[in-house]
Amino acid sequence: MSGVISLAHGAGGLETRELIDRVFTRVLGNDYLAESEDAAIIPVGAYAVSIDGFTVEPIVFNGGNIGKLAVAGSCNDVAMRGAKPKFLAASFIIEEGLSLDVLEEIVASFGAELRVNNALLIAADTKVTPRNQGVSGIFISTTAFGEVILEGLAAKNLRVGDLIIASGSIGDHGAAIFAAREGIELESGLKSDCASLWSLVSPLIDAKLPIVCMRDATRGGLAAVTNEWAIAANATLTLNESAIAVKNEVKGACELLGFEPYSLANEGVAIVAVRGEESAKKAIEIMRSSELGKNAAIIGYVGGDYKARVVLKTPHKTSRFLDMPSGELLPRIC
Amino acid sequence: MSGVISLAHGAGGLETRELIDRVFTRVLGNDYLAESEDAAIIPVGAYAVSIDGFTVEPIVFNGGNIGKLAVAGSCNDVAMRGAKPKFLAASFIIEEGLSLDVLEEIVASFGAELRVNNALLIAADTKVTPRNQGVSGIFISTTAFGEVILEGLAAKNLRVGDLIIASGSIGDHGAAIFAAREGIELESGLKSDCASLWSLVSPLIDAKLPIVCMRDATRGGLAAVTNEWAIAANATLTLNESAIAVKNEVKGACELLGFEPYSLANEGVAIVAVRGEESAKKAIEIMRSSELGKNAAIIGYVGGDYKARVVLKTPHKTSRFLDMPSGELLPRIC
Repeated sequence: MSGVISLAHGAGGLETRELIDRVFTRVLGNDYLAESEDAAIIPVGAYAVSIDGFTVEPIVFNGGNIGKLAVAGSCNDVAMRGAKPKFLAASFIIEEGLSLDVLEEIVASFGAELRVNNALLIAADTKVTPRNQGVSGIFISTTAFGEVILEGLAAKNLRVGDLIIASGSIGDHGAAIFAAREGIELESGLKSDCASLWSLVSPLIDAKLPIVCMRDATRGGLAAVTNEWAIAANATLTLNESAIAVKNEVKGACELLGFEPYSLANEGVAIVAVRGEESAKKAIEIMRSSELGKNAAIIGYVGGDYKARVVLKTPHKTSRFLDMPSGELLPRIC
Repeated sequence: MSGVISLAHGAGGLETRELIDRVFTRVLGNDYLAESEDAAIIPVGAYAVSIDGFTVEPIVFNGGNIGKLAVAGSCNDVAMRGAKPKFLAASFIIEEGLSLDVLEEIVASFGAELRVNNALLIAADTKVTPRNQGVSGIFISTTAFGEVILEGLAAKNLRVGDLIIASGSIGDHGAAIFAAREGIELESGLKSDCASLWSLVSPLIDAKLPIVCMRDATRGGLAAVTNEWAIAANATLTLNESAIAVKNEVKGACELLGFEPYSLANEGVAIVAVRGEESAKKAIEIMRSSELGKNAAIIGYVGGDYKARVVLKTPHKTSRFLDMPSGELLPRIC
């Protein structure tokens, strides 16, 4: 087997078996995959299911790679529904010519992030597309299955007075990808926040805090999540700009781009709505006790005069609408 | 909304919502998707799960398109494990510039094939990649969830004497894609066999026939399935070439290509192993009563002198090994 992926690796014959055995099974193998059937039988249970396609470019970036992102991203989607990640199905679409070393690095990160989630890969598919005609590197689509631990989370249940928490600083993933794409060296070595969030939110569930809904602020960033929530609840979400953590390097990248950080993608930030001030404070305390949540803060609340809108209160005591992002910020961000 | 897909349609903001609403929800909407959360909660049950990535080129071909294929292909994988297709999750990776008309045609076929399976789309994701840098048209990855009706199907359970049935003629999809790709006009208008197979195999299950295992003969074709079975059971599979239906147009395309039809992809052919001659005959009778199975035939049996090999008996009374396909037959076949 030479050092790059060839079309034969995707043809479903001998070379495909060799690729699967050498690169995938060695790292990701388990009893489900060992059956080598076209479908896996999962244990009976109450599952939350989410699918995501990952097209990030570059495929390896500061703070992670597309393998880590593809696991964390889908697992986070079920985690935000109150479900503990258990299983993953993955479709790998690989460009002919991709270096095997890079593929192995990506698969290693994929496997490592599965272990972080204590989840298993139960089904997978591999395709290879011709060079320059398909993907530049690799696309990964993942379906995550989470065991439902807390039922009933839904943005439509938001009520006036509910408090909005962000688990960390905003915009790191978007800014890191932009920097990598443009070859900008940020002095501080800004990293993607790419991380699996179940370990951050499960203690909130264990503590039986009155969580209304949770969402990871990925594509479209904080602006998209809060606008979707405002629409779902037909309420105003009011955010305090001074409470929203944004790293200086991210602010710098935003100035270069003409973006606002609230629209940049995050891949390891949970937005959590909690009912009641005491509960919100308790949630902050719990989140701050973990590395992932050390910058957790209450950034706003449900309430205000505009149905289905997000209002941002600036440090200058003025207010403006934070709109749903529009237009193309940065293609292939996740 | 103009007539082509733009990068903004993939950015997660306003345009993405508009694309989802106009093109996807209108056709595929249901109560699961209406929740607009990042993960869907599926009912408790015993599920078979399969994932497949579809990269076929051209995306519209004689007999179907990538939308129909993406539903049928994944649903067939769970159907072959004895599971009735129930839910689908889908990741759409669309190239900037794709015509909205074509996308709508693909989504319409996707929806129609879901209805054939009586299955629901429960989770979806859409990404847009820059033109000429990503996919030429669209890639679709689908995860199918089937309700397990018949447990215990597995190729490792094959025993000497078990009979091998093919539900139809071999190689139609591969030959049709080749013809479309090369601009070859086949007089007969050869079509892909792309079809959902649950309606074909469920009557066999209802009739309580002793089915050992089933597999749809997709990428790598009949040769790949039978070799995988021979390996799984550490047995010989012996096939009678004269019993294997191959259309004349497919034979013609194979002569042009220098391929053998047994390695060409099928997208609507079930290979079924049944224990006992009476049961196999009954299975053939049942399958032939449906349009999809009108050419069903017993094409071989488990037994012979070579562990983990497939032997093909030719009409000339000679035998040869049918090997696992090797090398690249046709990229982006499915």
